[in-house]
Amino acid sequence: MAEQGIEALLLTHLPDVRWLCGFTGSNAALAVTAKTAVLFTDGRYTTQAREETHGARVTIAKQSALRECCALLDTMAKKAWFDPQHTAVAELGLMRSGVGAKKRRGFFVALETPLASALRMVKDERELALMSRAARLGCELFEGILPRIEGGVTEVALAAELEFRARKRGAEGMSFETIIASGARSALPHGRATEAQLPRKGFVTLDFGVILNGYCSDMTRTVHVGRASGEERAAYEAVLEAQESAVAAAKPGATCGEVDEAARRVLRKARLGKYFTHSTGHGVGLEIHEQPRVAAGQEMQLEPGIVITIEPGVYLPGKFGIRIEDMVVVTKTGNRILTPVTKGWIEL
Amino acid sequence: MAEQGIEALLLTHLPDVRWLCGFTGSNAALAVTAKTAVLFTDGRYTTQAREETHGARVTIAKQSALRECCALLDTMAKKAWFDPQHTAVAELGLMRSGVGAKKRRGFFVALETPLASALRMVKDERELALMSRAARLGCELFEGILPRIEGGVTEVALAAELEFRARKRGAEGMSFETIIASGARSALPHGRATEAQLPRKGFVTLDFGVILNGYCSDMTRTVHVGRASGEERAAYEAVLEAQESAVAAAKPGATCGEVDEAARRVLRKARLGKYFTHSTGHGVGLEIHEQPRVAAGQEMQLEPGIVITIEPGVYLPGKFGIRIEDMVVVTKTGNRILTPVTKGWIEL
Repeated sequence: MAEQGIEALLLTHLPDVRWLCGFTGSNAALAVTAKTAVLFTDGRYTTQAREETHGARVTIAKQSALRECCALLDTMAKKAWFDPQHTAVAELGLMRSGVGAKKRRGFFVALETPLASALRMVKDERELALMSRAARLGCELFEGILPRIEGGVTEVALAAELEFRARKRGAEGMSFETIIASGARSALPHGRATEAQLPRKGFVTLDFGVILNGYCSDMTRTVHVGRASGEERAAYEAVLEAQESAVAAAKPGATCGEVDEAARRVLRKARLGKYFTHSTGHGVGLEIHEQPRVAAGQEMQLEPGIVITIEPGVYLPGKFGIRIEDMVVVTKTGNRILTPVTKGWIEL
Repeated sequence: MAEQGIEALLLTHLPDVRWLCGFTGSNAALAVTAKTAVLFTDGRYTTQAREETHGARVTIAKQSALRECCALLDTMAKKAWFDPQHTAVAELGLMRSGVGAKKRRGFFVALETPLASALRMVKDERELALMSRAARLGCELFEGILPRIEGGVTEVALAAELEFRARKRGAEGMSFETIIASGARSALPHGRATEAQLPRKGFVTLDFGVILNGYCSDMTRTVHVGRASGEERAAYEAVLEAQESAVAAAKPGATCGEVDEAARRVLRKARLGKYFTHSTGHGVGLEIHEQPRVAAGQEMQLEPGIVITIEPGVYLPGKFGIRIEDMVVVTKTGNRILTPVTKGWIEL
């Protein structure tokens, strides 16, 4: 904050609040200055906030946690910075109403770069240990569910089983709605598990993650039920090569755009470029989607401690889709894969 | 829109978009004028958007769905209205960048009342049928899990079992992170299920909901393991009376504040008023928290088709907590409870 000339900071994005002071409730406003940090929440969290919060004083708001936090900021600073990515236009109005009429206009300043997201992007050792555990649990769940994958099982039954096992192994929940897309549905990059039955012959894409100790995992594997065609097999090998090429490109100093291009180049060569319809990956941590974006043209340079997904895929509408995804942490010399379960061809 | 003089409307809040045109993807911007409706999303949803969307044309954005949607609005209208509750300050910047430089300043106007939320608050017959199904599934899950509630079982094992059964019965997921809070933890109104074991003697609060066909259910029951003390039993009866009193108050023309006060009055008489630390309820539908707020002083009048939760509770820090929650739909003559499972005293 001192480096950027920020006198006071208002944080309301819940993962930022959790990362800074440990509080996990659903309503929070955190005021931070050079001298102090004060967390505002509401009466539902009186006990929980005192138990969880460290490094900040806790205040239970009578009416609005956000407004009362802003009223405190008004007494502590001439200006306060906020995160425009995670502040609704209407919230800004509420924030201003907490500040004395004289100051109101220029009191709140939008951060040019989101300070907390930028800090959260680089994980420390403790966080990497937690993320590695979450990712390993994901891998074990994938291996455990493989024997259940066969023609006739519904996608949703498979998802239910996967999620149940995750919960029993300690996951607080899933990072996002489990994607199990089989047969022609595998051509839907975000095909949620439905009542559709797995085909006797065709791809099954499993894209899922667990939340363990607050941290999200994310992985995708695509397996084939029954005998694959030459076209299917060739497309799989191309996606795998693209994925491995992007993983190899993920190292300190490389831009996110270069990592994306490494995957895209392989798929273009295989004449599948136009079927790779999304970006290569994204940061992951307390949130399933974090900084940085691993997409075409992204100039952001990777550095040690950044955790990203690398997940190229191809989607041939009406036919099939394939995606392979790892979580990767950038290290001093290159990277380490956090999801070390096989990516090789699996025919069940 | 015509009534309120709204020439063009931009919708980006995903439940609003789903409600209006059926699209369920995670990235969407919908432009609506008197003549046309156009949905913008990205390449991940090419197939899904065409399958799901009705009443709107689908455009796959090359870069930003939001920005391209705004560029279209620029060609169709002199001004466009947006929802300031669900638009981030930074998004407004992106929206403006999609509009020609001359118009940019005054083009986007914040809606004074959120149009889509207000419409979504009143459910039609089809929605009520879906919500009733979701709520009934919740009730059946509660009844089914009762035999599993006993001292020594962990909260999270119970949650895992409940969620597994929900998934097997067709739920897409849970409405929110399942709350199972036992013993002294029941005094945490938002106590997520943890590794804590249910006590041999004490309350267990189960607050959970399923998402079925997109609609959320929400219910809470508090049961007692082992023999309860007189104080516990009396507090339970007071919460039950408060809950039933609030349910009785929920009818067309009543304000949300009156419903809240009906519950609060009972708890004050029982000298438990200060332990009722949250509001009485909230609207529910495609989202777990919707309009209206059922809280002290809320002037909003109920009308037929509005679905709310009624969930008073008391929380005695370090001792115990009790909450009882139903989902209720306001009818022409009063209301109908959507969660008809017993609220009577249960000692296991």
